[in-house]
Amino acid sequence: MSPESPLAAEAAVKTNPGRFFEDFRLGDVLVHATPRTLTVGDASLYTALTGSRFALHSSDDFARSLGYPKAPLDDLLVFHTVFGKTVPDVSLNAVANLGYAEGRFGAPIYPGDTVTATSEVIGLRETSDGKSGVVWVRTRGLNVHHELVLEYVRWVMVRKRAPGQVAVPEPTVPELSDAVPVERLLIPRGLRLQLYDRQLAGSPHLWDDYAVGEKIDHADGMTLEEAEHQIATRLYQNTAKVHFDQLVADAGCFGKRIVYGGHVISIARALSFNGLANAFRIVAIHGGRHTNPTFAGDTLFAWSEVLAKAELPGRPDLGVLRLLTRATKNRPAGDFPALGENGKPHPDVVLEFDYSVLMPRQA
Amino acid sequence: MSPESPLAAEAAVKTNPGRFFEDFRLGDVLVHATPRTLTVGDASLYTALTGSRFALHSSDDFARSLGYPKAPLDDLLVFHTVFGKTVPDVSLNAVANLGYAEGRFGAPIYPGDTVTATSEVIGLRETSDGKSGVVWVRTRGLNVHHELVLEYVRWVMVRKRAPGQVAVPEPTVPELSDAVPVERLLIPRGLRLQLYDRQLAGSPHLWDDYAVGEKIDHADGMTLEEAEHQIATRLYQNTAKVHFDQLVADAGCFGKRIVYGGHVISIARALSFNGLANAFRIVAIHGGRHTNPTFAGDTLFAWSEVLAKAELPGRPDLGVLRLLTRATKNRPAGDFPALGENGKPHPDVVLEFDYSVLMPRQA
Amino acid sequence: MSPESPLAAEAAVKTNPGRFFEDFRLGDVLVHATPRTLTVGDASLYTALTGSRFALHSSDDFARSLGYPKAPLDDLLVFHTVFGKTVPDVSLNAVANLGYAEGRFGAPIYPGDTVTATSEVIGLRETSDGKSGVVWVRTRGLNVHHELVLEYVRWVMVRKRAPGQVAVPEPTVPELSDAVPVERLLIPRGLRLQLYDRQLAGSPHLWDDYAVGEKIDHADGMTLEEAEHQIATRLYQNTAKVHFDQLVADAGCFGKRIVYGGHVISIARALSFNGLANAFRIVAIHGGRHTNPTFAGDTLFAWSEVLAKAELPGRPDLGVLRLLTRATKNRPAGDFPALGENGKPHPDVVLEFDYSVLMPRQA
Repeated sequence: MSPESPLAAEAAVKTNPGRFFEDFRLGDVLVHATPRTLTVGDASLYTALTGSRFALHSSDDFARSLGYPKAPLDDLLVFHTVFGKTVPDVSLNAVANLGYAEGRFGAPIYPGDTVTATSEVIGLRETSDGKSGVVWVRTRGLNVHHELVLEYVRWVMVRKRAPGQVAVPEPTVPELSDAVPVERLLIPRGLRLQLYDRQLAGSPHLWDDYAVGEKIDHADGMTLEEAEHQIATRLYQNTAKVHFDQLVADAGCFGKRIVYGGHVISIARALSFNGLANAFRIVAIHGGRHTNPTFAGDTLFAWSEVLAKAELPGRPDLGVLRLLTRATKNRPAGDFPALGENGKPHPDVVLEFDYSVLMPRQA
Repeated sequence: MSPESPLAAEAAVKTNPGRFFEDFRLGDVLVHATPRTLTVGDASLYTALTGSRFALHSSDDFARSLGYPKAPLDDLLVFHTVFGKTVPDVSLNAVANLGYAEGRFGAPIYPGDTVTATSEVIGLRETSDGKSGVVWVRTRGLNVHHELVLEYVRWVMVRKRAPGQVAVPEPTVPELSDAVPVERLLIPRGLRLQLYDRQLAGSPHLWDDYAVGEKIDHADGMTLEEAEHQIATRLYQNTAKVHFDQLVADAGCFGKRIVYGGHVISIARALSFNGLANAFRIVAIHGGRHTNPTFAGDTLFAWSEVLAKAELPGRPDLGVLRLLTRATKNRPAGDFPALGENGKPHPDVVLEFDYSVLMPRQA
Repeated sequence: MSPESPLAAEAAVKTNPGRFFEDFRLGDVLVHATPRTLTVGDASLYTALTGSRFALHSSDDFARSLGYPKAPLDDLLVFHTVFGKTVPDVSLNAVANLGYAEGRFGAPIYPGDTVTATSEVIGLRETSDGKSGVVWVRTRGLNVHHELVLEYVRWVMVRKRAPGQVAVPEPTVPELSDAVPVERLLIPRGLRLQLYDRQLAGSPHLWDDYAVGEKIDHADGMTLEEAEHQIATRLYQNTAKVHFDQLVADAGCFGKRIVYGGHVISIARALSFNGLANAFRIVAIHGGRHTNPTFAGDTLFAWSEVLAKAELPGRPDLGVLRLLTRATKNRPAGDFPALGENGKPHPDVVLEFDYSVLMPRQA
């Protein structure tokens, strides 16, 4: 080390400052750090942090009755784990998390399975003010057999390191589907529903009982605590500063740490048990928006609308429900708030989550 | 759907509003949802949330030295799991949790075992104002071999859906024992005490060393946090709104979320290690009362009185202590507070828990 | 019981009041209670409470690529577990935790392994005011094969039961090394680094890339919550009152519960991933000081200085870095704060942790 390169500058090389907009190249495949073996320890924490009650993820015996070898981990726990891995490589310098699309779940993850994640850069577009750019990535989670566990597209607005100084690439905006088509959904191998026990699952209502356009109030409220969302977000090894660092929060526009949006999704999904107890598997995430920030102290509620129903070829026992679940904060959702004035999202709505679930059909 | 049945009304059918007093029938057996495979993840969380230090539940090797195949899960973790399952079916519309009786623990639960629960309605009595009624249920937890894991009677006051409008059943009040008799206690099969290591267990004092009437101050205090009791209560998949929903709390008489009484029992039991470290197994719950509510921010202390001692036929190595453990809030328990003025429970006492434990005897 | 020995006095015998200075004898070996089987449940909680991202502890497959049979538990989780066991026997009546030295890690601990702990009294010295004394213990953690898992020397100032009334032993102060010499370090058996994957580990920088004197800012901040440090400290079955009992805190000089110093060490180590991701194993703890107390609400940052580098005989693939990691509270550490005025520790520094890690070398 020369006197001209002080140690502090040297040290900056070791610390990961995160990628800036200029650092992304179309077609790059980022291999994310810290593979993660998910375990029954993670399953217990997920239950304890969200209150989820879906029987498939709660009971090995219930899972075996459906043809699973044991209880798979909650789909969203797997999603958050994969998502968390991408943060240091994709969104450490993000200004905003803009959206999700084309999310599909594949091979179930069981306790003991290890998940790795990669992200391919599939779109880049500088913002008009030249200070940042939108980055689209397709993230894939794999198990150790290289089977697809999960894939989704996410786009984020990322700061530039040096606004205006670097030649930016031609804008490339990927074409994304509004929804994952039914024929692309991945149905767990060996799934059978002859022994599906509705009493143990918690609801008599099957796929046949739901109507397109039907709205379901999930009734219960859940007040979030700072320790809870931090513990959840660290469980996913997600390092985004806004969730953890009160000094960063003090310098931001809210003065508070922001709850990881994925924790809000998980709470909404857990609340949705009351009304959708037989929605045992998430198969697709068509889109999602965090329309308002959520903070510790907020009480979340949720309601769902059935957007569509689909049959599955060769599966008279199983149907798909496409749901739009909205979470509200600090007010019950029994009046199904969606839009506010001027057609914008209702100010009390913090989440719009558009996804599809599997549900047994009547025999 | 007809125009006369709007979607909102339709949706109400999907959401479980909980049973009202009119919905219970004497002799009904309710099969509770969400079977639960308990794991080492739950054991770790139980330790982390309560600070329990009983060697049997902490160490596989200690457990094996007593003839167990590995460390069984804490008796109260099993109790709370079974209890949690009953809430959506029994007490979602409860006004008050009135009491427990005739609790017995049977087959130990090991990591990997799945617990299911049912409740039989054994008593019903309308309250004099006609607005609610008392419901008695006998709840049973089973493992997958259909062995009894736990049973207990609980009675709660439940709101009526429509006061005064429905013919109510003849009052039926079950006769309940003041205490589970020694001959009905279930002793774990294969239990042996020749290798019981008092140093590892944490106390030299055995069954022989305790006297009826003896009082033990458990000395330590534990301040509760909102996140802690919520995490614990969700771990048990207990959905009672008063523990989680600050909006419900704001509308209640305390303005605060109420700590699940079971968490208070667990904290008291964990504190009781200091003075009762060799009380390795709870075998009966004779009764329990939450004499005052507990809130986040309260600091709990505990003391115990030895109510009775019993020998076990054919077991010169093992004795039963019947204990009354009281928890206090925001004041140490070294002066053994029990009753306040007028013979009512002391205002600082939040819990009276009447139970029996197994303890090794001197060789 | 005679009328002269009231029940309260009798009960005091059952409750462990902790050892006072007079109760320690040079050469005593204390066998600590509550052996602990560590599991994947503990691993998940450790991740969730600290945010640690080291690949070795996160992934069974990554661990196997290095020759481990599966992911070992984090070194500091093992340290805190052993430390926690010593509290009821060593430091329940401690006035101050003075220091650590000669810490070495031996056999890795895997999920399912049980740890027991003993402490040998190796030094005693009454304080000049006669009210307390310093106790030195060498604590050892063993697995069930009686292999050394961890050993370290700790010294604490312990109150006397009755100042001035008891003949105190001749002062004996052990000679302690400033640092564990490289030849005494224990390298995990079977460790191989040919397949070490730096992308999965999270950093391209190997042992060769670090220079003595180099300073590394770990950049991220972590705000601590009361529930988090309590959950962590209970996980370790550490019963020191100052961490849990707000009534004790109210009577103390800070009015707040004090965060267990080990939790601060773990947060600093987790933050150090950003800059030291390939420091996959702690092999020695040369010393450590908690230079200021940490409370809930504080935001921790950390930076490290490379104190020394060492090769290992016969291991061209592996090197040792001796690090001094400092944690600061409520201010970033990018300016590397160390000493304040007058050469005392900087007032914003809460931790100085002097330890050695293993890191792969360039092939």
